[in-house]
Amino acid sequence: MEMYSCFSIKLFKAFRKARRHVALVRRRVFDRKNLALLAFLPTTTTTGAAAWIVTMSVSGGLTLARRAVEAVRRTPRWQKRLLVLTVGAGSLTYACQDNQVLQINDGTGKKRVVIVGTGWAGASFLRNIDTSLYDVHVVSPRNYFTFTPLLPSVTCGTVEARSIVEPIRNIVRKRGGAFRFWEAECYKIDPTNKKIHCKSDNGTNIDGNGDFVVDYDYLIVSVGARPNTFNTPGVVENCHFLKEVEDAQKIRKSVMKCFERASLPNLTEEERKKNLHFVIIGGGPTGVEFAAELHDFVNEDLAKLYPDVKKYVNISVIEAGDHILTMFDKRITQFAEDKFKRTGIDLKTNFKVVKVTDKAITMTNSATGEIAVPYGMAVWSTGIGTRPIIMDFMKQVGQANRRVLATDEWLRVHGCDDVYALGDCATITQRKVMGFHDLLKDSEGNAIKELKELDIEEFKKALARVDSQVKMLPATAQVASQEGAYLANCFNRMKYCEENPEGPLRIRGTGRHRFKPFRYRHLGQFAPLGGEQTAAQLPGDWIHVGHSTQWLWYSVYASKQFSWRTRMLVVSDWGRRFIYGRDSSSL
Amino acid sequence: MEMYSCFSIKLFKAFRKARRHVALVRRRVFDRKNLALLAFLPTTTTTGAAAWIVTMSVSGGLTLARRAVEAVRRTPRWQKRLLVLTVGAGSLTYACQDNQVLQINDGTGKKRVVIVGTGWAGASFLRNIDTSLYDVHVVSPRNYFTFTPLLPSVTCGTVEARSIVEPIRNIVRKRGGAFRFWEAECYKIDPTNKKIHCKSDNGTNIDGNGDFVVDYDYLIVSVGARPNTFNTPGVVENCHFLKEVEDAQKIRKSVMKCFERASLPNLTEEERKKNLHFVIIGGGPTGVEFAAELHDFVNEDLAKLYPDVKKYVNISVIEAGDHILTMFDKRITQFAEDKFKRTGIDLKTNFKVVKVTDKAITMTNSATGEIAVPYGMAVWSTGIGTRPIIMDFMKQVGQANRRVLATDEWLRVHGCDDVYALGDCATITQRKVMGFHDLLKDSEGNAIKELKELDIEEFKKALARVDSQVKMLPATAQVASQEGAYLANCFNRMKYCEENPEGPLRIRGTGRHRFKPFRYRHLGQFAPLGGEQTAAQLPGDWIHVGHSTQWLWYSVYASKQFSWRTRMLVVSDWGRRFIYGRDSSSL
Repeated sequence: MEMYSCFSIKLFKAFRKARRHVALVRRRVFDRKNLALLAFLPTTTTTGAAAWIVTMSVSGGLTLARRAVEAVRRTPRWQKRLLVLTVGAGSLTYACQDNQVLQINDGTGKKRVVIVGTGWAGASFLRNIDTSLYDVHVVSPRNYFTFTPLLPSVTCGTVEARSIVEPIRNIVRKRGGAFRFWEAECYKIDPTNKKIHCKSDNGTNIDGNGDFVVDYDYLIVSVGARPNTFNTPGVVENCHFLKEVEDAQKIRKSVMKCFERASLPNLTEEERKKNLHFVIIGGGPTGVEFAAELHDFVNEDLAKLYPDVKKYVNISVIEAGDHILTMFDKRITQFAEDKFKRTGIDLKTNFKVVKVTDKAITMTNSATGEIAVPYGMAVWSTGIGTRPIIMDFMKQVGQANRRVLATDEWLRVHGCDDVYALGDCATITQRKVMGFHDLLKDSEGNAIKELKELDIEEFKKALARVDSQVKMLPATAQVASQEGAYLANCFNRMKYCEENPEGPLRIRGTGRHRFKPFRYRHLGQFAPLGGEQTAAQLPGDWIHVGHSTQWLWYSVYASKQFSWRTRMLVVSDWGRRFIYGRDSSSL
Repeated sequence: MEMYSCFSIKLFKAFRKARRHVALVRRRVFDRKNLALLAFLPTTTTTGAAAWIVTMSVSGGLTLARRAVEAVRRTPRWQKRLLVLTVGAGSLTYACQDNQVLQINDGTGKKRVVIVGTGWAGASFLRNIDTSLYDVHVVSPRNYFTFTPLLPSVTCGTVEARSIVEPIRNIVRKRGGAFRFWEAECYKIDPTNKKIHCKSDNGTNIDGNGDFVVDYDYLIVSVGARPNTFNTPGVVENCHFLKEVEDAQKIRKSVMKCFERASLPNLTEEERKKNLHFVIIGGGPTGVEFAAELHDFVNEDLAKLYPDVKKYVNISVIEAGDHILTMFDKRITQFAEDKFKRTGIDLKTNFKVVKVTDKAITMTNSATGEIAVPYGMAVWSTGIGTRPIIMDFMKQVGQANRRVLATDEWLRVHGCDDVYALGDCATITQRKVMGFHDLLKDSEGNAIKELKELDIEEFKKALARVDSQVKMLPATAQVASQEGAYLANCFNRMKYCEENPEGPLRIRGTGRHRFKPFRYRHLGQFAPLGGEQTAAQLPGDWIHVGHSTQWLWYSVYASKQFSWRTRMLVVSDWGRRFIYGRDSSSL
């Protein structure tokens, strides 16, 4: 009996190890497929295909498990024992490998690359850097990577917080312990002495001082940004933000608290309305998606659980500009605004919030003047600002007058050596002088025509191309992720490209740049609008809004997950929501 | 295209509704099966059977889903449309039922029952009370029920926090909105005026005053207990407790923080050891289970992720008595102590903690005197104490000299009318006078023999039986749950039993008591010891320790879940752990 249970545990453990191997291989294959998939997207938009992809992703895992169980059932006993022996020996070998002392690349003469931050840019760099070439160190106040595009889903429990995070230590382990991670906050960059100063939570060591210093040869700054409050008084104290997983968890708890408070006896109608007034400040993609998610949560789940107070619920989106979702095509903006009006989300455009207290939000509008509205919960999502550490760093490198840290097209920070900045904390400035002939090359790099034959249309096209290159890149996961991968690729080919430079001609100095400059490849953008409808804007001016796009959204977001583990968790969360709805515990 | 996706969504929603119905029916059937299962347990101990039960529970759900999908695939198109129509019409009817205005039983002349607390006792009462007979109101600071026996699993991420909670509003909805729930804390009971005073979080209404008063005809006090610190200085400030879901979540985060802190550079060996010294104070079932879970977490998952610091990990269990798990059979205690010694958990018996600071725990022992040990994280789990609201209530009803609120065998609080107390906040005192002839009845109620023929063995047996009845009931989920069900049953039969009293003869007064007194039926107890081994002590002195008992534990705990939703979540969490291990994000 004891043996039998031992057998099952061994089998399970072996299965788990095997599963990891398979996952690793599949991940690699899938990532490649993924690109193909995205290229394929603009032409295939049928729901069927998207649903099929999701189903296949899910059923793949299930089938594997079922087959394993069935195979064990069918096998005669002596074969089972043989299997246990084989698998046992195999897993023992694997386990021994696991427990080997990790090779930390200290003192091997490798140059040290220090990465600050484990968001999209940092994690993407980490995934792609060849750790056999560098001594890689990572510092971040969070020991996990967050799949930020699903944060609005976490606020309402459509997806659980843990389903969208991947521990950095898992990546360390998958890479054979080839780099080091420290959970600490970098509070000062010292580019002169090539050091960064970090601090951990209190109580790290006996004297309670958690400070330490890390030397670097190359520094990758990918600390991201912080929410921009435009110094509006009361925002930090009274509003929620939506940048981190913890923010999303807090919002979720707060929504439930608002409903519970509004349900108490002895409240006036006014008070119930106040508690159930949810205000979103900022009509960007995050704010709009959160408003849509909240609206779904209220109508699909909470209306049934809080029937007495559902009539008091009011969701407002306050936007300083004329329209919401301004970075999208006009058709999408129009559709979103119409949909919000139809579903009862209160859209207040041209309103600027000037003050937030614990009781009311004060805003102004040229027509109405200043008005104050009581609210139950407010989420501030108006854009991003620069973190203090970056502001301090900018002063040191002579960028004190700029608003954002500037890098060149190779992501090198202007004004200091060996420091690279990517993701939301930096922006790329173009080379100032551009060869006129370069300008007149088409995207394949062929000179268009002789200069004298250029007509006005072609000149306009050329200018548009320049414009697209000079335009500031959006602060999105896509940009950060591509920058990370690009930079890691540069680092990996540092030696080769030193000898065989592939970049454009240097303007100052002679010869060519080592690497081609970073070029952003826009793969499209989604804006979920609630009610199982999503707006999609893909390259080639392909625009679609509807239920089919929602399924496209599901499949793209499932495929883009960091690991098979999180993919399984996210897909099973979606499934759980379909079957049981969202959880309403105020937890 | 649009239609096709509409179809899938409708189908999904219909499926979700149907699933809920099936779940409801299955739950009822399963609950009955469950009792049979537990009666059957002492004789069937094979792992196979237990594993089969788990597999069946899981595969039941999967098979259902698979069959549904296959059925849809195979059906011709016109039949599908017919199905959509039928299901659509059905679900429309159901949805209409859902949205009906809830019947709140106000002013119908029904007596009002107010339940304070939604733990095991309160939730069990709620599940069983006939809401057509009473106007039921529930007040609790948490809007969910927690499956507390799995709390130690939540501390290490074996099971997620949300998997073990069931929102009270879900129960309200399943019961057709037949009772009311308020998320607030009851801070004062006024038995003279039959009122309770409640307060909610701040900011409930415009003037920020969240107080309100609820009248009652019958009051059910099931507020549970609080951790008992024995007034040891520094415990509240520096130790974690393990009573609520939030406690478990905090412990989980704290464990990860300790590992991350210990991994930082610039720390001495001493400091790393300090950060990785996990201390559990109290050798009861909760403390021991947490120690075992933590040990598994460290060895199965964290050792691979933190290979540099795993050698510094130390888990200590401090117990004031001679042995841990004193409420279990000696064989289990012995096995647990041996196992802990073998696996390297440091067991400090006969040590009394006298002070806790943020740096060290001070304890005394008759042999060594006072010693102070530095620690990284401490969990205090030494037993339970009385909540302030109960102490205040005891003063009012003349029980100021007692340590715990006393009730009679019908769970009525001594010293006041129409107030019942159950669960951890109360204890049952026996009737003081007992008929000598009653004493000499065997368990079926037949008089054993004539008095003069009574031999010493039979007299001992009779005394043991008395002893078992007088002994204070343990503060466990089982007791609370049975008390809740018993009391609800009494309330449901109030009218009938008024006319047909079924209880024993009254000692003071004439006639019989209305109800039979509450009798606790002990169904057994588990003590998970880590490494997929569990100790079980079931009725009939059936004791077993090992891997097979772990599978028994899995199946019993899966079957005991509050709803099919949490059952699915818990089982899938276990599955996820088997495949991917526990999550190490410090979230």
